[in-house]
Amino acid sequence: VDALNGPLEAVEWVGDERGYLKILDQTRLPASVEVIECRDLETVREAIRSLRVRGAPAIGIAGAYGLIVGLQADAGLPGEDVRERVARTSRALRACRPTAVNLFAYLDRLESVAAVPGAASDSGLPARLFAEARRIDAENRDACEAMARHGAALIEDGWGVITHCNTGGLATAGIGTALGVLIRAHEDGKRLRVFADETRPLLQGARLTTLELRRAGVDVTLICDSAAARVLHERRADAVFLGADRIASNGDVANKIGTYSLAVNAAAHGIPFFVVAPTSTIDAALENGDAIPIEERRPDEVATWQGEPIAPPEVAVYNPAFDVTPHRYVSAIVTERGVLRPPFRESIAAALEPART
Amino acid sequence: VDALNGPLEAVEWVGDERGYLKILDQTRLPASVEVIECRDLETVREAIRSLRVRGAPAIGIAGAYGLIVGLQADAGLPGEDVRERVARTSRALRACRPTAVNLFAYLDRLESVAAVPGAASDSGLPARLFAEARRIDAENRDACEAMARHGAALIEDGWGVITHCNTGGLATAGIGTALGVLIRAHEDGKRLRVFADETRPLLQGARLTTLELRRAGVDVTLICDSAAARVLHERRADAVFLGADRIASNGDVANKIGTYSLAVNAAAHGIPFFVVAPTSTIDAALENGDAIPIEERRPDEVATWQGEPIAPPEVAVYNPAFDVTPHRYVSAIVTERGVLRPPFRESIAAALEPART
Repeated sequence: VDALNGPLEAVEWVGDERGYLKILDQTRLPASVEVIECRDLETVREAIRSLRVRGAPAIGIAGAYGLIVGLQADAGLPGEDVRERVARTSRALRACRPTAVNLFAYLDRLESVAAVPGAASDSGLPARLFAEARRIDAENRDACEAMARHGAALIEDGWGVITHCNTGGLATAGIGTALGVLIRAHEDGKRLRVFADETRPLLQGARLTTLELRRAGVDVTLICDSAAARVLHERRADAVFLGADRIASNGDVANKIGTYSLAVNAAAHGIPFFVVAPTSTIDAALENGDAIPIEERRPDEVATWQGEPIAPPEVAVYNPAFDVTPHRYVSAIVTERGVLRPPFRESIAAALEPART
Repeated sequence: VDALNGPLEAVEWVGDERGYLKILDQTRLPASVEVIECRDLETVREAIRSLRVRGAPAIGIAGAYGLIVGLQADAGLPGEDVRERVARTSRALRACRPTAVNLFAYLDRLESVAAVPGAASDSGLPARLFAEARRIDAENRDACEAMARHGAALIEDGWGVITHCNTGGLATAGIGTALGVLIRAHEDGKRLRVFADETRPLLQGARLTTLELRRAGVDVTLICDSAAARVLHERRADAVFLGADRIASNGDVANKIGTYSLAVNAAAHGIPFFVVAPTSTIDAALENGDAIPIEERRPDEVATWQGEPIAPPEVAVYNPAFDVTPHRYVSAIVTERGVLRPPFRESIAAALEPART
């Protein structure tokens, strides 16, 4: 299978509630297209921890389906009821990645299904849990379509756009968040030139974003992360569009390491900075971004490349996987419910309102 | 030979004017220590073009000695006098790298030696050219010592410092520019914690800076370039120290790609930004940085790693090797003649004055 052609589905469920989960191994892209068939919890957990599936929405959906897979063969511990069994499986999945909030939000939804009175003795519970996972998947696809529509309206013909990390179909169910916006604008006939940050250390921009944009026919140029400021200085970019892993209630944005540096540089050049994320990425319980846990990943992600050292042995490495961009650098947050503008505390609260009523 | 121990000399001349040039192949570091013996012009040119020798001062010294090597076996073209022969060899060397100015400045000096009346019939000319190359080399070593002294005085005990690319003994003759300053401060007993940007695409920070700082016993932590802003946000850095490839007469600084992004982020956090460079790096003929030619290097530096693709085939790449940091982001320029402060047009003119009189 050729990564430039043919289907590339990040996360796909096969069959009914007794089926299994297919995860595309994104660490092998673009060199090869390999799909992992997940029929037990550990395979799903390993795929999430090792970034074979990545992107906050896709991680969340893999986690939701991962719960279904995990429950299939799990008879429960002695004295454990079904609700406790769901909670235990959920905990094992939550522990895989600490920053992206969608995983937690979707597992919360599944745990709620198991928590209704009578669920423990309900033989239809597996089907109802599966139906909820399916609903989460479908809602994500719909949300991507809505974000693409709202976001594309912000883009003007002829724009240069910088993007960071990967936020396309590989990061979501559906067409993606920020890349979905760019691809929709292209489909709407707007001429675009996209500069894709390579996104060290794991090069999701180089490996995945360039691939997805080329598949969609969008003009894309790969740059080193640190060259984005030069592109801004040369006035070749009119906007930044990227995703989010968690958004606090004041609009502070946790996203892939390098987002904050790009935001500061965009502001220094007077260039708008757009975050595209479904409302499930918003953690309404968080006052601001300071409380978002930032995953620190292994030194060898930075100090080696494909197993070969690129630094002296045993060098100390600081490898935060994410950073937090204060809301004052964010021009707007594009969600499936519309474009949120500052002041974000108000616009975010209003956007979350319909979900609560 | 182990890169963590034993001598590591970037550029070294062996013997008298009939001798040869040794260039340490820095593209092989830190994995292996390999020295290239240059006995003809093409070997020197290839080493400069392929970044086997890099760092503005080291390139300049390699170029000066390269001229000596180039003239050894060159009988000249028909009708060509010695001055024209020197100029032709010099042109071939100048064409190797367009941005760093030291190469041009040192070749200018050698061409002046060949341009004095009577030089064409002077049998002592090779010895006088060689003596001038030797003088350039020695002056660089002395300048590094002086910069280290001036720069170390700026550093306070307990500081965190971010540096970019490689500016140590591997980038110069002598102990380096910015790294020389940090190593001197460490030797003076100041506690330092250095964050070394890995410096994509060629990873001079990961491969060389961590190596040199560890050899000197300085506490160094490797980070991705885009993580520097996170380190600043966490208040773990008190200053930035880095080098320069060319400085305009208004203080605009051309340096390794990523320098500008770091400068903008340092300013956003109120952190001082120090450039360390010998006065030979200043191009007094340039009004400002806009006129500095920025070398654009091959796409495969970004799109492949050690020959293996890390992006889809034939992806478009923009790979500027340098960027220009406007002088308003520069707190001071540390030279061998002292610390230059804004307004730089005045302080730079004053620093260059003694050289002209």
